[in-house]
Amino acid sequence: MIKAEKLREIVGEDWVITKREKMRRYLVDETPLAIRRKPTDNVILVKPASTNEVSRILKLANREKTPVFIRGGGTGICGGAVPTVDGIVLSTERLDKIEEVDRDNLMIVVESGVTLGAMLKAVEDAGLFFPPHPGDEGAHIGGLVACNAGGVRAVKYGVIRNFVKGLEAVAPTGEILKVGGKLLKNNQGFDLMHLLINSGGTLGVITKVIFRLCSKFASSGTLVISYDNRHEAIDSVPKILQSGVVPLAIEYVEREVIEISANRLGMKWPATKGRAYLIIILTGDSEDEVYRQGEKVSAICERYHAVDILIAERKEEQANILKIRSEVYVSLKDRVADVLDITVPPASIGVMMDKVDEIAQRFNATIPTYGHAGDGNLHPHLLNDLAEKGKLREVKREIYQEAVKLGGVITGEHGLGVIRLPDLDIYPDGKTWELMRGIKSVFDPNNILSPGVGLL
Amino acid sequence: MIKAEKLREIVGEDWVITKREKMRRYLVDETPLAIRRKPTDNVILVKPASTNEVSRILKLANREKTPVFIRGGGTGICGGAVPTVDGIVLSTERLDKIEEVDRDNLMIVVESGVTLGAMLKAVEDAGLFFPPHPGDEGAHIGGLVACNAGGVRAVKYGVIRNFVKGLEAVAPTGEILKVGGKLLKNNQGFDLMHLLINSGGTLGVITKVIFRLCSKFASSGTLVISYDNRHEAIDSVPKILQSGVVPLAIEYVEREVIEISANRLGMKWPATKGRAYLIIILTGDSEDEVYRQGEKVSAICERYHAVDILIAERKEEQANILKIRSEVYVSLKDRVADVLDITVPPASIGVMMDKVDEIAQRFNATIPTYGHAGDGNLHPHLLNDLAEKGKLREVKREIYQEAVKLGGVITGEHGLGVIRLPDLDIYPDGKTWELMRGIKSVFDPNNILSPGVGLL
Repeated sequence: MIKAEKLREIVGEDWVITKREKMRRYLVDETPLAIRRKPTDNVILVKPASTNEVSRILKLANREKTPVFIRGGGTGICGGAVPTVDGIVLSTERLDKIEEVDRDNLMIVVESGVTLGAMLKAVEDAGLFFPPHPGDEGAHIGGLVACNAGGVRAVKYGVIRNFVKGLEAVAPTGEILKVGGKLLKNNQGFDLMHLLINSGGTLGVITKVIFRLCSKFASSGTLVISYDNRHEAIDSVPKILQSGVVPLAIEYVEREVIEISANRLGMKWPATKGRAYLIIILTGDSEDEVYRQGEKVSAICERYHAVDILIAERKEEQANILKIRSEVYVSLKDRVADVLDITVPPASIGVMMDKVDEIAQRFNATIPTYGHAGDGNLHPHLLNDLAEKGKLREVKREIYQEAVKLGGVITGEHGLGVIRLPDLDIYPDGKTWELMRGIKSVFDPNNILSPGVGLL
Repeated sequence: MIKAEKLREIVGEDWVITKREKMRRYLVDETPLAIRRKPTDNVILVKPASTNEVSRILKLANREKTPVFIRGGGTGICGGAVPTVDGIVLSTERLDKIEEVDRDNLMIVVESGVTLGAMLKAVEDAGLFFPPHPGDEGAHIGGLVACNAGGVRAVKYGVIRNFVKGLEAVAPTGEILKVGGKLLKNNQGFDLMHLLINSGGTLGVITKVIFRLCSKFASSGTLVISYDNRHEAIDSVPKILQSGVVPLAIEYVEREVIEISANRLGMKWPATKGRAYLIIILTGDSEDEVYRQGEKVSAICERYHAVDILIAERKEEQANILKIRSEVYVSLKDRVADVLDITVPPASIGVMMDKVDEIAQRFNATIPTYGHAGDGNLHPHLLNDLAEKGKLREVKREIYQEAVKLGGVITGEHGLGVIRLPDLDIYPDGKTWELMRGIKSVFDPNNILSPGVGLL
């Protein structure tokens, strides 16, 4: 284990913390309590201010074989940031510079400790648009990239991966890597950039990111489409996508779940009919264009027996609908023991939800489920009652098995972290995991970076 | 070296070829003659019909440490398919099934030996759209993915990488790998899929691909915008992209080059004014929408002193413009000694072209250059006169150096292959190449797959 003294030589007196009471919030993340790992006792917190300092810390840690856990915004929900063995927590919070908004190349260059919120503001101020919005704006850019965050806006624009064009990262052995650039095409060797994206902090410490930006859309509209029947709602989705309309987001929620959120907020869910809802956000270059898209979507949904269609055009109305949707998790949070993140082929999410309901019934439990209907990503919420009955693991396994049967995966956007590793035996492909472990050894021969995270 | 006999046991008598005269076309690709490598003397050509046969061949080759070169459509132009050491050429041509066009999930599942042309037809027949069009429709799907092909339509939709959602591949050691699926979100471990994309046939034999498809656009229009001055043309491009219009393609050509192609085809380049041209393809959900985009683009280009703007709406007119553009390479081909593939930040392509002109002047040569203005990818064509003067390498190095100074790379879409390896010393980042070589060893411990390709 490295001595704090040596770290102080690198970052200065003030940026090495050894007192437990001054680092509490660095020892946990947003993983539900029921499955959160206990942090280890012996931790040194270090806060480098530059890529060069990160490099020196990792060289030292590698030489002394001291584990290093990377700390971004701490908004992850699969335990990847919790130091579970004695070592260093390296916080990127001082790497907080927005280096450049490059309007001519439609790119932004940011250090990894910048928050999503701060970056969005800089982009907005430049009159541009960064499409992904994975949720908590306190998340750090480095974490968003290390976890390839998703969110509701992936239907039209895809996940974070699609927007990363260049990275600077420090290898576990301390070398500074620069991959990509302000480039839209780059075939120069194996794509280490895409390998670092979603490496969950195990292959390098991301210190700088170049993102592609978009122009702002001129107009938007939010539709709430009500159905009596889940499958009619879900079956409308491919028809919408085939029609040429590509919404920014297509969310699916059910009355029981969405009303919990609305009630908690003291708001009213605007749809009075039906029990199954699509929330569709349309964007376009003009009001006309959005209107035409809305007409097209409405016609399709009516063919699939929608019982009501509400169109919100005013900013405030749209924001209210989104607010109720995005606070579903918060409204359930105190009762949640585990949030699953299964992803299936988009057309199969109705079937998948039926399976979740069947399992819930069999275990005499409620499993609130909602998700990103446009991209097949569902979040069944396993509640504390299942944990109390000791059934958490069993129910989770059954849901995972069903997702895999449908050609799905157990994590679409949240990542493996540490909490999902015990269930990877569901995927019998030993060679795939062997290759991943081999890649880890190439980058991190002493296994110092985020040990125990993301790999069997 | 494996005995042909053993290969016959796997694929049957008819599918192992040892006679040189029956395999000539499998020993070359489309790399210009001046820089094409000589194929080796001792080659066995094998044509497996299934993933399982590919797996058995690779297990055998790995055991006997026999090099294997993968053969797709042979349309590559950087020498990656030419067997340069004694071994096997494994052709994927019998893996030619289009397994499924899945309209509900907007996905297509194809074997890797399907040609781009055949796949585009199947997609078209299903009333859907596959955006990337990297050129030669004889290219095989496996090669397109292994080389992460680009092309003119990358402005709106990005390169092949963005459309790959799942892969089946056989590791050099013979195991069958399945990564991804009909999934729009997938964070299950390191992204081996993105690592296989652009691995140039060095990490595995791709046997099956799942691509995301799009809905068809209802309407399109092609603009030819004429300028007297290169920089005014180039400087319009970021303004167009900032305006909210995202064209399918933005190409840049100059009169001297485009007229060579038009003359060869016996056609007439429609623009009579100016010498620098943007070709912009607009697509939209309706004629109105395309018209509105056209108005917006025209207004911007006029501000940048466009001297003429032609709008082609009829299919035939649009096709003619594209035909002349896409045959530029063919019209120069006999004179071409090397096609470069530099990519710089999009806003820098005007400066980059000036640098190419300066170098051309200094070497008293003509270097026809044109490229994808929307994505910063330029193809300077070094002609035979430079090769004859023994100046090919020197000129290439100078152009590469200038691209790197602008934050660019030496290959945006064609790949490293073998022809670009001698120039990678321009990138001093030894650690990056060390990591790539380490990854190669993890996948291919005996270095049997495409040895000498893509890696220093």
